[in-house]
Amino acid sequence: MRALFVALFCLPLYIQAQTNQDSITIKKMVDEVMTNGKAYDLLRELTKKIGGRLAGSPQQQNAAIWGKRNLALFSPDNVYLQPCKTPNWQRGGKDFASIVGIGGVATNQPLAALALGNSLSSNGLVEADIVAVANFDELEKRKDEIKGKIVYYHSVFNPTKVQTFQAYGEMGVYRSTGASRAAKYGAVGVMIHSLSTAPDNEPHTGGMKYDEAYPKIPAVALGPNDAKALYELTKKNTVRGQIQTYGFFLPDADENNVVAELKGTQFPDQIITIGGHLDSWDVNEGAHDDGAGIVQTMEILRTMKALNYQPKHTIRFVLFANEENGMRGGNKYADLAKENKEQHIFALESDAGGFTPRAFGITCSADQLKKFQSWNKFLKPYGTEVAAGGGGADIGPLAKVNPSIVLSGLVPDSQRYFDLHHATTDVFENVNKRELLLGAANMAAIIYLVDQYGVNP
Amino acid sequence: MRALFVALFCLPLYIQAQTNQDSITIKKMVDEVMTNGKAYDLLRELTKKIGGRLAGSPQQQNAAIWGKRNLALFSPDNVYLQPCKTPNWQRGGKDFASIVGIGGVATNQPLAALALGNSLSSNGLVEADIVAVANFDELEKRKDEIKGKIVYYHSVFNPTKVQTFQAYGEMGVYRSTGASRAAKYGAVGVMIHSLSTAPDNEPHTGGMKYDEAYPKIPAVALGPNDAKALYELTKKNTVRGQIQTYGFFLPDADENNVVAELKGTQFPDQIITIGGHLDSWDVNEGAHDDGAGIVQTMEILRTMKALNYQPKHTIRFVLFANEENGMRGGNKYADLAKENKEQHIFALESDAGGFTPRAFGITCSADQLKKFQSWNKFLKPYGTEVAAGGGGADIGPLAKVNPSIVLSGLVPDSQRYFDLHHATTDVFENVNKRELLLGAANMAAIIYLVDQYGVNP
Repeated sequence: MRALFVALFCLPLYIQAQTNQDSITIKKMVDEVMTNGKAYDLLRELTKKIGGRLAGSPQQQNAAIWGKRNLALFSPDNVYLQPCKTPNWQRGGKDFASIVGIGGVATNQPLAALALGNSLSSNGLVEADIVAVANFDELEKRKDEIKGKIVYYHSVFNPTKVQTFQAYGEMGVYRSTGASRAAKYGAVGVMIHSLSTAPDNEPHTGGMKYDEAYPKIPAVALGPNDAKALYELTKKNTVRGQIQTYGFFLPDADENNVVAELKGTQFPDQIITIGGHLDSWDVNEGAHDDGAGIVQTMEILRTMKALNYQPKHTIRFVLFANEENGMRGGNKYADLAKENKEQHIFALESDAGGFTPRAFGITCSADQLKKFQSWNKFLKPYGTEVAAGGGGADIGPLAKVNPSIVLSGLVPDSQRYFDLHHATTDVFENVNKRELLLGAANMAAIIYLVDQYGVNP
Repeated sequence: MRALFVALFCLPLYIQAQTNQDSITIKKMVDEVMTNGKAYDLLRELTKKIGGRLAGSPQQQNAAIWGKRNLALFSPDNVYLQPCKTPNWQRGGKDFASIVGIGGVATNQPLAALALGNSLSSNGLVEADIVAVANFDELEKRKDEIKGKIVYYHSVFNPTKVQTFQAYGEMGVYRSTGASRAAKYGAVGVMIHSLSTAPDNEPHTGGMKYDEAYPKIPAVALGPNDAKALYELTKKNTVRGQIQTYGFFLPDADENNVVAELKGTQFPDQIITIGGHLDSWDVNEGAHDDGAGIVQTMEILRTMKALNYQPKHTIRFVLFANEENGMRGGNKYADLAKENKEQHIFALESDAGGFTPRAFGITCSADQLKKFQSWNKFLKPYGTEVAAGGGGADIGPLAKVNPSIVLSGLVPDSQRYFDLHHATTDVFENVNKRELLLGAANMAAIIYLVDQYGVNP
């Protein structure tokens, strides 16, 4: 009878009290981030003192040392480097592209261009007529025209996709595979329209991969204005172009993931991972991609220590070594997790820019999703909610270790990301302090909830 | 029996078909804005060719002519100017503030400063010790110390307010009334911490109003960094400061609201108004405040004409003449509405910046709100939803004409607005094309729904 009384009357009261307590703790965390947050100052250091930090570069090695030192200042239970080999791609020179003939008339119109990451040197100047195609379908239809030519892909984002990552998803394949698909038919070089939303002429680099079956031809991304003008020209004229690039690989480099840890008080063997990637492309400061995710990760550790929060589960704060052109950091972290028989229950990555947070995309079972969605009441006051589907490149390999791990990605507002993603414009000045901090604040909130209540219904 | 059959079976089908048709039409409108939108190009013209356009300035007169000409290019049924008198405040010179003594020791530390709009000249250099107060409560407690002094208000935003307009709402009163509240106790000048979220030193101007009962003392806003440093200094030292400002009024000026109209096919006498304000402060380009609202308003007209949309209600596209320091444009529009016995059912203003749209704040009855909220399914795919409470300064006076008018304001993401609001940094370069267009697209969607279904349940 007493048990029934407790169940009927006290449990709801207990749940209500707990809900209030959760709201209070989350507000404390958010307020701490928004009031005393160090993420913005850390980002200034990372971007302005270290700068661009492609895997393999001394900057990336310095960034890991910087990360370890600064994480240590926040007094985690443990902080260490996790060595891993990374690719060591070198741009090698100042990439060049131009139009040198229009309808048989010689001209000289330099094009804003950046070689795609992992692409190889043109070995001198490549000059050929340009075959411009709207997409792979057109390439296939015109495959007999390709031999000896430079192929241009008009990989323009669909502006009606409200979520810009959808447009990026559609066009990314031209950057990653366009060179080999053209080389298959004898092309001698490839140009793409930069994967950009910006109304400007900044070229955007980014990773590509050769198919070993075909010649490794040079590949560049053109500034959007130049690309559009080129495409128009090719509709009525034979256009002749040049490409010169210098890419090559040095032997794999010694880099490091940086890992800080707060030991769990109740479930020390169950691990929650928060992270971003420390590497960036060589041409910019990697402020949004992914300096933002790095300093947000560090900020959550700072906030938990500032509030003397003692997690139930072990929480890892991970600065991954190499996302952009190899994914070696994330794979190393997962390999070690497997080797050490670690039990990973949840991982959260921030790698979509330091913009106003809108949601957490979560990959989990339907029942787990319901549980996560029941937390929307705690998240909505700070601008986020739970959405189905999401994760991150660096945490993805953990699913090979534990297929039932719950993976999540912070989903910031996406309108500005592809204006500067992989372009020289991804610099500190284009990060807004409040937007950056609000992302960290929401991440702290969901990590707190996972730590308190786990991931299972 | 047949009637019952129709009611039971056909009505739901009709409603479903209509819902699908609405979704399709709204998507067409959104796609038209995102694909062919001219708002960004118009904003470039307004900000770069005309620039800052305080009411009374020749720039504001030119802006009205520019607005009328460009609206006419989109072929509305009617476009006209609506003359109105506006205040004609002149900054008059280069505002100056400095610290000239710390603890009795002479120094010379210029402070980044802008006179508040509508404030009057200091009539030469004002020099006095500074009494720094956290708020009006402290001012009242220390009222006996104020005579002959310069009062500094530490009007810093509360960073934990996720919606920055809430923090602005709390601190706005120091800008608008701080001078007279200090003059009441004999102060000779006033400084405030700029109403800013930016981690920089840009001073932010903005409207103030003197209480006629007290001397009209000079009032400046300080750059945030300088303001915080000054506040710290005053905690341990007597700090002596200087102010020199030059503000004055010329006789009221002849300005114009600009009105374009699409005549309603079914309810021509029922008017829907969309608008923003054409004036800005003198120190910047007024890109977000409120160039954005102006070009979004123009964009909706362009889109409706491009899609050959024939509204049921009469839709007015209004570029209001004077919001910043007088509200004369909005009042004139409402006065004429009353004089002409116009029937206004709905008005929507965009005056919170050209950032990613998040919601429409709507002031209406509970039953009407339910109706608006039933449209969330149409809005959410594009990022907005309906929230209770909202409107705009220029459309507010319409409530005096029709107390049951439904008023609405576009609610964009607010994190960056007060970084640049009324500061020199509110320039075209700080507006993102996609964010701006997405605001116009969502506005077009809700206007379509109001036009199709009215505002009543």
